[in-house]
Amino acid sequence: MNFASDNAGPAAPEVIEAVCRANEGHAASYGAEPLMELVLEEVRRQFEAPEASVHLVATGTAANALSVACLCPPWSTIYCHRHSHIEEDECGAPEFFTGGAKLTLLDGDHAKIKPCALHRKLDGAAPVGVHNVQRGVLSVTNATENGSVYACQEVSELTATARGFGLPCHMDGARFANAVVSTGCTAAEMSWKAGIDILSFGGTKNGLLGVEAVVIFAPEQAWEFELRRKRGGHLFSKHRFLSAQMATYLKDGLWKTLAARSNRMAAKLAAGLSELDRATIVHPVDANMVFAKLTRSAHRRAFASGAKYYLWPPAQSLEGKESKLLEARFVCNWSTTDDEIAELLECLREKS
Amino acid sequence: MNFASDNAGPAAPEVIEAVCRANEGHAASYGAEPLMELVLEEVRRQFEAPEASVHLVATGTAANALSVACLCPPWSTIYCHRHSHIEEDECGAPEFFTGGAKLTLLDGDHAKIKPCALHRKLDGAAPVGVHNVQRGVLSVTNATENGSVYACQEVSELTATARGFGLPCHMDGARFANAVVSTGCTAAEMSWKAGIDILSFGGTKNGLLGVEAVVIFAPEQAWEFELRRKRGGHLFSKHRFLSAQMATYLKDGLWKTLAARSNRMAAKLAAGLSELDRATIVHPVDANMVFAKLTRSAHRRAFASGAKYYLWPPAQSLEGKESKLLEARFVCNWSTTDDEIAELLECLREKS
Amino acid sequence: MNFASDNAGPAAPEVIEAVCRANEGHAASYGAEPLMELVLEEVRRQFEAPEASVHLVATGTAANALSVACLCPPWSTIYCHRHSHIEEDECGAPEFFTGGAKLTLLDGDHAKIKPCALHRKLDGAAPVGVHNVQRGVLSVTNATENGSVYACQEVSELTATARGFGLPCHMDGARFANAVVSTGCTAAEMSWKAGIDILSFGGTKNGLLGVEAVVIFAPEQAWEFELRRKRGGHLFSKHRFLSAQMATYLKDGLWKTLAARSNRMAAKLAAGLSELDRATIVHPVDANMVFAKLTRSAHRRAFASGAKYYLWPPAQSLEGKESKLLEARFVCNWSTTDDEIAELLECLREKS
Amino acid sequence: MNFASDNAGPAAPEVIEAVCRANEGHAASYGAEPLMELVLEEVRRQFEAPEASVHLVATGTAANALSVACLCPPWSTIYCHRHSHIEEDECGAPEFFTGGAKLTLLDGDHAKIKPCALHRKLDGAAPVGVHNVQRGVLSVTNATENGSVYACQEVSELTATARGFGLPCHMDGARFANAVVSTGCTAAEMSWKAGIDILSFGGTKNGLLGVEAVVIFAPEQAWEFELRRKRGGHLFSKHRFLSAQMATYLKDGLWKTLAARSNRMAAKLAAGLSELDRATIVHPVDANMVFAKLTRSAHRRAFASGAKYYLWPPAQSLEGKESKLLEARFVCNWSTTDDEIAELLECLREKS
Repeated sequence: MNFASDNAGPAAPEVIEAVCRANEGHAASYGAEPLMELVLEEVRRQFEAPEASVHLVATGTAANALSVACLCPPWSTIYCHRHSHIEEDECGAPEFFTGGAKLTLLDGDHAKIKPCALHRKLDGAAPVGVHNVQRGVLSVTNATENGSVYACQEVSELTATARGFGLPCHMDGARFANAVVSTGCTAAEMSWKAGIDILSFGGTKNGLLGVEAVVIFAPEQAWEFELRRKRGGHLFSKHRFLSAQMATYLKDGLWKTLAARSNRMAAKLAAGLSELDRATIVHPVDANMVFAKLTRSAHRRAFASGAKYYLWPPAQSLEGKESKLLEARFVCNWSTTDDEIAELLECLREKS
Repeated sequence: MNFASDNAGPAAPEVIEAVCRANEGHAASYGAEPLMELVLEEVRRQFEAPEASVHLVATGTAANALSVACLCPPWSTIYCHRHSHIEEDECGAPEFFTGGAKLTLLDGDHAKIKPCALHRKLDGAAPVGVHNVQRGVLSVTNATENGSVYACQEVSELTATARGFGLPCHMDGARFANAVVSTGCTAAEMSWKAGIDILSFGGTKNGLLGVEAVVIFAPEQAWEFELRRKRGGHLFSKHRFLSAQMATYLKDGLWKTLAARSNRMAAKLAAGLSELDRATIVHPVDANMVFAKLTRSAHRRAFASGAKYYLWPPAQSLEGKESKLLEARFVCNWSTTDDEIAELLECLREKS
Repeated sequence: MNFASDNAGPAAPEVIEAVCRANEGHAASYGAEPLMELVLEEVRRQFEAPEASVHLVATGTAANALSVACLCPPWSTIYCHRHSHIEEDECGAPEFFTGGAKLTLLDGDHAKIKPCALHRKLDGAAPVGVHNVQRGVLSVTNATENGSVYACQEVSELTATARGFGLPCHMDGARFANAVVSTGCTAAEMSWKAGIDILSFGGTKNGLLGVEAVVIFAPEQAWEFELRRKRGGHLFSKHRFLSAQMATYLKDGLWKTLAARSNRMAAKLAAGLSELDRATIVHPVDANMVFAKLTRSAHRRAFASGAKYYLWPPAQSLEGKESKLLEARFVCNWSTTDDEIAELLECLREKS
Repeated sequence: MNFASDNAGPAAPEVIEAVCRANEGHAASYGAEPLMELVLEEVRRQFEAPEASVHLVATGTAANALSVACLCPPWSTIYCHRHSHIEEDECGAPEFFTGGAKLTLLDGDHAKIKPCALHRKLDGAAPVGVHNVQRGVLSVTNATENGSVYACQEVSELTATARGFGLPCHMDGARFANAVVSTGCTAAEMSWKAGIDILSFGGTKNGLLGVEAVVIFAPEQAWEFELRRKRGGHLFSKHRFLSAQMATYLKDGLWKTLAARSNRMAAKLAAGLSELDRATIVHPVDANMVFAKLTRSAHRRAFASGAKYYLWPPAQSLEGKESKLLEARFVCNWSTTDDEIAELLECLREKS
């Protein structure tokens, strides 16, 4: 019953096997291994982007921070949602990798930015002289940190708004697979066709041991990314263990198969929760996460039974007025089972 | 016949098995998994340092750059050998992570710094006013980039010199295991007992998939390291796959067993080379690397037979005056076999 | 009729004379000149802070950015008002000098932070783990960018709140003189006695050519400031021209005399404006600035007559619905005359 | 008898007068004042560069560091002489402003780089992969820190060499006026015609209170410079006091008149020194500085008589073996008189 995070789950068996297979004999280092060619080819094919460049790193923070650093100068600002990973969960990595850019925070329900809010913020920015930071880049998270998903059309509207002010666009796709599966669109539709210049294409939360592919659709930025990656300590010598994971992830659309599973589990959990007395679903359950409000006694029972998940925001106390509901986040991953869902729901059900 | 780099070799089978084992079920993320406790305990025991803190990262560049950044401010300089990894092979990562510190380069045979040279440089530094960068930190590489090894006593003399000017000391131990095995001293003797404050304890070059342990002997710096690691994108969510590798590496001294093998192979290769006509060993073969000068025809035969290694410095041409010898670097790893050595020597042997 | 900014006004004649006087013969450079000793002595006396260190720079941005950089690490956040100079008018200088710290923005009427709002923000910050930036420093602006002034007691309450979370405190005192004069308190009461660790004590906006004194009440940070100043290119070789200005500024309380004049002029302007039909004062006029809403026709007449001031926020259009009032900022400086006030008011008066 | 530094001398009377004149009434801020237009016009005229942009800052360190930051990315290296100001006297400002670039040091007599040495270093740089920092920019100092001067032709050869590797070129012209006067060439010949992209055109050492003009010959970099300057805290609000100085400096070639004086005084001092027993001139006296070796007793007499100058390198002791000569640096400025020269020579003359 572990719903703490998608990164608490194991790697998919196919992936571990691929890592083992990659371990035979010697191989060229630093991405010169043949497996990386396969990855490049496959990404280009699946994203219908024959010019794209692909760069592997091991953490989502590295993928995001290196990407935005390639897209905006230090004296600019990154437009993102207040509840985005780059703002809340990277200890200032974007600031560090950009050399001190700012983050301009946008509000919006369910961690989604609305085009009109973005337009207002961009338009209302101080007149662009030297006194204020310049407009830098838009960073959109899909699926969002609240488990909602932007439709391709919604992403397109945001990037069109940004482009109206000359801004390039980044997508934090730590859960890109979940978004693609959820919307039924293609990888291309959800990325470059929707105006994205650089995509952090996540793998770690979706069955890999630790690999994210940065996909750069404007290949003239590829070399700068390479230098930033090396300089950031993010270029792996035994790179074959990264490309092996990513090659497997791409093979036969495994990335979509795994995401479909975790999305389905979340939907099932949400359905179960919505039938509980006094439970409320807080955000649309578009991907693999469910945010719900429940009674303190429900939480106490679940924790007592060994369930793992976070109250949201974290670090709240279970103490307090009994009647007030407490929000929690439940994250499913590819390995979540029907039994775990059932067991969790059983714990959370109010006893009469 | 791959002698290109120790990172071209495979991971040790015990390590791959450990990674597979670590994949069962859910686990806490970000180093909170039980395996990491084991790593901490084992490092403390083997280094006789009950207060040490241990932090895993995946690349040597990250380990080094984060370590020196904890030891010196942006307005200072790092004393290191001209042929150190932090100067030559990290694309400015130390400058990036320190926020713009300088590297002051020391010369010295076989990539080793001599205490008198260090003293001269430190003493001859401009009088410490605000106009020049301040003396920052000493970084010693052991084993060196030339395959030589400092004895514990030599390290102690360097760190004592540095400490005489108030400097803390870092060791780039990407090949720490090779140095320990080569000298026969203990891990403690080669690190904190020799005056080292933070050690990059390498694993990737010595049979892991990609893990380095940063061992901090002055635990008051541990929290800063944690923040720098996260901010640098170097904190792994599925951290268990790092701790699994490191735990296995430490178990029963596997790290020394593997290093002993690669050292032994290098010694064997050196012995063979020294018997060849017109071949010269350039640096002491203390660890797992052999630098040797050989004829162009020898190189041509070897490359034609598929041998992989670098002319040194890299990117030289095989063209040129036949009589002039060309230096090359041969790196052995734990998996190098007697047959490979024999085959390489056969290629390099001058035919009459 | 120039009310564009206090930095559009001239330097006080005493100051220019001092600069001329300082030009005789040779002098030691970089702050070693005797005049700087005088400055140090006088600041310590007037601030009742015998241990304080004093450092001169030439711009307010330098003073602020260097100060906060001494008080918080790169992985932390600076708490400040949304309408503070460090957020809106320094093109990311605080981010640059800190090495990438964040700014956390607080709202509050009249550009003033309320202790309860600060407490809520500090308390509501994500639990302090490695994932989010750490709480760094509080920066209070007095007088504020809206021309309001914090009483000493209000500053004390803010710094006490900050200190409850372990934070040091900076004051952006570009208009410190105006605040001191406005409240009638002493320099000490408005700075260290109110919990301020480092003060940017402004001079440029108040009759100097271009000097700000950074006053550090915790002298153990003085050396770091010196290094940061030099490294930032902010240490003047012919430093005597800075110390001459500051020495004169301090002599016989000239800084307060000048600020009293500009405050008085602003009060007079505000009084005049409040008698105009259809004019509204927007913020308390505690210092030398008046923010007022006026009709478009009033603005048109004033601009046509050569008055200089900014619509607020700047870069608005005078076009639009006639009935809607437009806000403007009027800044007085030590040289503003009664006649200029009268002339401006005459322009702004609605003709029947 | 002050020969400590050119920045120990006073500002020229014309300059002080201009500052006083500039103080009348209100003026636009931040470089929008009419005086700055005059400066721009005059620089373009005198440098025969109708497209050049001009940016004023107050210190040489700011001018240099901002300039090189515009010319090279963080992951590159700046080629400069070991005895250049950016290496020895700026506390790492170039590293700070570039975001962590490296400085690659070249040797060469009299602080001059030889084209062949530059070519060797550039050519011998590690093959340009991601592992090492990239070739960034050439920075030439003219006049040099040793008082020697590059002829235009010498500068051209260096910049041609750099350009052969794709590098842009910066000139640290803190003593540009002395170099121009010394060589008899034009401002254009010594700058853009000799291949310089950005020039730090010094004024502070040559009679100003504190102004350097950064002249950018490739105007597409002007906007980036503006942003970097503001972000670095180097944009002055009361900018008219900078433009007033620079306008006067440019008027009727005052900059050359002043430099001619200091050069002439240095020549005179050198002539006098070369007639002294046991005195040796160390570097060519091309500009306004004399480096000479003298006996300890000569130094003792001079210091006892109140002469001010630095032993070189600074902070040496006068103690020691009497027979060994000690080097010293004597710097003349526009205000140095014949009497001071005579008085100094008298002190230094060995008494029989």
